[in-house]
Amino acid sequence: MGRVTERRRVLRIREGAASSRPDTLVAEEPLEIRLNGRPLAITMRTPGDDFALAVGFLVSEGVIGRAEEVASVVYCAGATADGSNTYNVVDVRLAPGVPVPDITLERNVYTTSSCGLCGKASLDAVRTTARWTIADTPPVRVTPALLAALPDQLRAAQRVFDRTGGLHAAGLFSPEGELLDLREDVGRHNAVDKLIGRALRSGHLPLSRSILLVSGRASFELAQKAVMAGIPLLAAVSAPSSLAVDLATETGLTLVGFLRGGSMNVYAGEQRLDLRAEAMAGGPTR
Amino acid sequence: MGRVTERRRVLRIREGAASSRPDTLVAEEPLEIRLNGRPLAITMRTPGDDFALAVGFLVSEGVIGRAEEVASVVYCAGATADGSNTYNVVDVRLAPGVPVPDITLERNVYTTSSCGLCGKASLDAVRTTARWTIADTPPVRVTPALLAALPDQLRAAQRVFDRTGGLHAAGLFSPEGELLDLREDVGRHNAVDKLIGRALRSGHLPLSRSILLVSGRASFELAQKAVMAGIPLLAAVSAPSSLAVDLATETGLTLVGFLRGGSMNVYAGEQRLDLRAEAMAGGPTR
Repeated sequence: MGRVTERRRVLRIREGAASSRPDTLVAEEPLEIRLNGRPLAITMRTPGDDFALAVGFLVSEGVIGRAEEVASVVYCAGATADGSNTYNVVDVRLAPGVPVPDITLERNVYTTSSCGLCGKASLDAVRTTARWTIADTPPVRVTPALLAALPDQLRAAQRVFDRTGGLHAAGLFSPEGELLDLREDVGRHNAVDKLIGRALRSGHLPLSRSILLVSGRASFELAQKAVMAGIPLLAAVSAPSSLAVDLATETGLTLVGFLRGGSMNVYAGEQRLDLRAEAMAGGPTR
Repeated sequence: MGRVTERRRVLRIREGAASSRPDTLVAEEPLEIRLNGRPLAITMRTPGDDFALAVGFLVSEGVIGRAEEVASVVYCAGATADGSNTYNVVDVRLAPGVPVPDITLERNVYTTSSCGLCGKASLDAVRTTARWTIADTPPVRVTPALLAALPDQLRAAQRVFDRTGGLHAAGLFSPEGELLDLREDVGRHNAVDKLIGRALRSGHLPLSRSILLVSGRASFELAQKAVMAGIPLLAAVSAPSSLAVDLATETGLTLVGFLRGGSMNVYAGEQRLDLRAEAMAGGPTR
């Protein structure tokens, strides 16, 4: 089975001097996701949590929403010419009665997200396939001070990044700021799918009491995954795209960007931010 | 036609104070790439250079290698119910006699890269579809000092990033360190495909005298695109993945990572780095 990191020799050049030494790199391998035996998608991912990645991807695509809808998840043996198991092909079998999506060509040309022919169609596609509306019972409400503390928590908990510098991180937090789960991957979409898949498998979907924090930018695709998992608040360390903001506005998702050093921009759903003076001053957060 | 940036209202929180103001965001819209009228891929991209993106994608996938192999590139009208043109669907028609790839299901489940069932298969797929070997006549040879100066050049030339913070950049440089072309996009793979597509359309493929610099990490996919365009040197500001290093090693691509502040790591193809003492000290670069 694949490893999360691999070693390679590297020539380091520092201040005019070159030296050769072994270095730790983040591992990248393809994963083919099959649905009831038929190929559905291939993603380049960091090995690990492959079953969670596969079912999380299916949640993001609107195929499943509960653990009971999955009959089995297995690595496919015999995918190579010599019959060995590369652990790079995962087959998800749906439980009896669960509708199998029509795997048309149009469906399969989706690269990394459900999208249509224009931004509006992309928004519509998410809205029509979403299992849950973003619930506010009880309402999630956080202070800027609580949000501002999350990136440092995420970074402190990242295990592989320190060794390779090559991983995107995604973390799930409670509304009280407690880190619930963290995944790292070469692909930011994979890190989020792994979080969502683990939540599905442990019966925690929809994640209506969770905050999702991603280490990079907030694209449409990441906002889509948050919405499909019922997450009410997506925060990103860097910038959001226009379509991510539009999706957040349409679905009621709170979208925070540029979450750095106590500052942040709120692009949608600001009702979940507690902006009372005492909260802004870093007072009690609950 | 889509714009590169869009305006949205944002709630800014800075040092305990919140204020509302308009903000500039990077635009993100889906682009469907059709080949001879049949859907081939959908990618989420920043509008602009769409024809270059479409043909550059086809170069990366090994479908074409010369401008003459393309008969036409057009926006498809009538893609929406009301018949309007969203400028989000591009059809590439191949010239007579150019083989149309077999658009099988397996082919189309590729998400963002040509990959197989294991890392080795991914490497093989690139090697067998590459049009050019990475030529070294005349050899490209650069000093660390020349490479070290490129990220600042790229950043200085980025126009949209300063306003949105949301874009990946990819730049093509000559072996003398001159910036030849620069593209920005929400997707780093799109930025590279746009560069390659523009080179194809201006008759500059293979890019055997070019250095490709990317603002983020060096994934397998980006290394693949460099190889498919005949680029001999790929440099990244951040970390490479294991599979990117393996592909570089197998194909003869020079791969430089962590190119920051005068330091860098060379993961493959170090013969293109001029490591003589006077070169290391920042002397003449040619």
